[in-house]
Amino acid sequence: MTNPTHPARELTITSAANPRLKALLGLRRRRTRDETGHTLVEGYEEIDLALGVGVRPRTVFVCEELFSPAGRAGSQDIGHQDDLLARLRAERVEVVHLSRGAFEKVSYREGPDGLLAVVDRVGVALADLPAPGPSHLTLLSQGVEKPGNLGAMLRTADAAGVDAVVAADPVTDWGNPNVVRASKGTVFAVPAASATTAEVLDWLRAHEISLVVTTPETDLLHTDVDLTGRVAIAVGSEKHGADRVLLEAATHRVRIPMAGAANSLNVAASAAIVLYEAVRQRGVR
Amino acid sequence: MTNPTHPARELTITSAANPRLKALLGLRRRRTRDETGHTLVEGYEEIDLALGVGVRPRTVFVCEELFSPAGRAGSQDIGHQDDLLARLRAERVEVVHLSRGAFEKVSYREGPDGLLAVVDRVGVALADLPAPGPSHLTLLSQGVEKPGNLGAMLRTADAAGVDAVVAADPVTDWGNPNVVRASKGTVFAVPAASATTAEVLDWLRAHEISLVVTTPETDLLHTDVDLTGRVAIAVGSEKHGADRVLLEAATHRVRIPMAGAANSLNVAASAAIVLYEAVRQRGVR
Repeated sequence: MTNPTHPARELTITSAANPRLKALLGLRRRRTRDETGHTLVEGYEEIDLALGVGVRPRTVFVCEELFSPAGRAGSQDIGHQDDLLARLRAERVEVVHLSRGAFEKVSYREGPDGLLAVVDRVGVALADLPAPGPSHLTLLSQGVEKPGNLGAMLRTADAAGVDAVVAADPVTDWGNPNVVRASKGTVFAVPAASATTAEVLDWLRAHEISLVVTTPETDLLHTDVDLTGRVAIAVGSEKHGADRVLLEAATHRVRIPMAGAANSLNVAASAAIVLYEAVRQRGVR
Repeated sequence: MTNPTHPARELTITSAANPRLKALLGLRRRRTRDETGHTLVEGYEEIDLALGVGVRPRTVFVCEELFSPAGRAGSQDIGHQDDLLARLRAERVEVVHLSRGAFEKVSYREGPDGLLAVVDRVGVALADLPAPGPSHLTLLSQGVEKPGNLGAMLRTADAAGVDAVVAADPVTDWGNPNVVRASKGTVFAVPAASATTAEVLDWLRAHEISLVVTTPETDLLHTDVDLTGRVAIAVGSEKHGADRVLLEAATHRVRIPMAGAANSLNVAASAAIVLYEAVRQRGVR
């Protein structure tokens, strides 16, 4: 099963019926992620970012034939992918080679670039988050459903320098491969936790973190309140917004001014707007 | 071909091979949209918003069996969909009934709700935009590729109350059905234009609109510059950002502070952050 063109002891799989490929497909299901504690990261950019913040993949599945896909701009990509493979080998990560047909079966994105890693699932308990400092900033999402929105929020939260992203009553787990992808791998860089809304409120009170909840039902603007100090900025679900429990626990309920024909901003856009108002107030350059 | 359960003269199509369905599928291609001047809008929410801003569909394709899909929350949706159909009939819009199989063939989204309209394509020439007033605000996107990003930017631009959204050297047309969908129909509410970068720069100069371009390559922050008055806020493509021509024409080059592991914000998040800094400076409530 070894291939003479690859370093010794590296496995090559060409059969789509191979049990290891079936196990990979299984990780698309939340139940399997919960049972194994593993998840998937696909693509150069995401795996590179995960490595950069100290994530060591358990296995990387490789299809070198896809390293230079036809019709793709940027032929320097090939060098990048070879470099990444060398770094993974230096970290003694298990490398498994796949035929093109086998790789395309396990790939979950358009235009696969021949790299797919299995990593330990992200997401911790609230108690495992770093102790909040005097200017702690949390982004809190309650009941957000779409992996694309959760991923976009992680990416913006990373750029804004938040200390934690917390999902209350999450519909989608942080290890969902589409969250990992939409986050561009930043899910590995930002401390991310999940808990019930009641547990999150207890955690906020215990650490004296003020809670600023976005809702259309208020006159106060997000720019009217102090977002320095220990603050959690909360956004609610795509369909229903923040629930009554969260709204009643809020230190401030704030709205983002809206002038248009539609009645709401996308939840990830709302999070970006309020997080960057906090960045502005904090004088971050 | 008429169905006794529907008002007289309303057509019912049950064959997936019907030429009108083939014409509908054709509108997924830009070339056909360019030739016909038509595009597609699917779903209650988007069609409702388009109607609300004065768009009169040419035809609406309906599958009442899908008005109450199993597993969907909010049974009041059925009433909404019936109301919308009544309003379309009152506007003398042609109504064509489709069997479930036929509708599912032409639907381009997950979880179709039984409503799909053909409308005149959106997007005008620069010369057809409303004359810029003293506090004119434009969102300018250069070379943005992903329909989801363009749609998200339209939705945020609508909420921020911009006067125009302009695509310079667009890769994707405003009539792309995935732009319409991601915009939640706001593409019909915000004046949207397309032109070359040279034409856009001429238009900005002619109307004395200052140009603020986002780029990582500057010390000036987006919060450091005056975003009141006649301003165009520009973001560049997902891969390459703003090009040299746009950067050299800028009144101000500004960056959004970034603290994180990844090296960029999503283009729609960047647009949201800078647009809402303009909203803040303008004192909009």
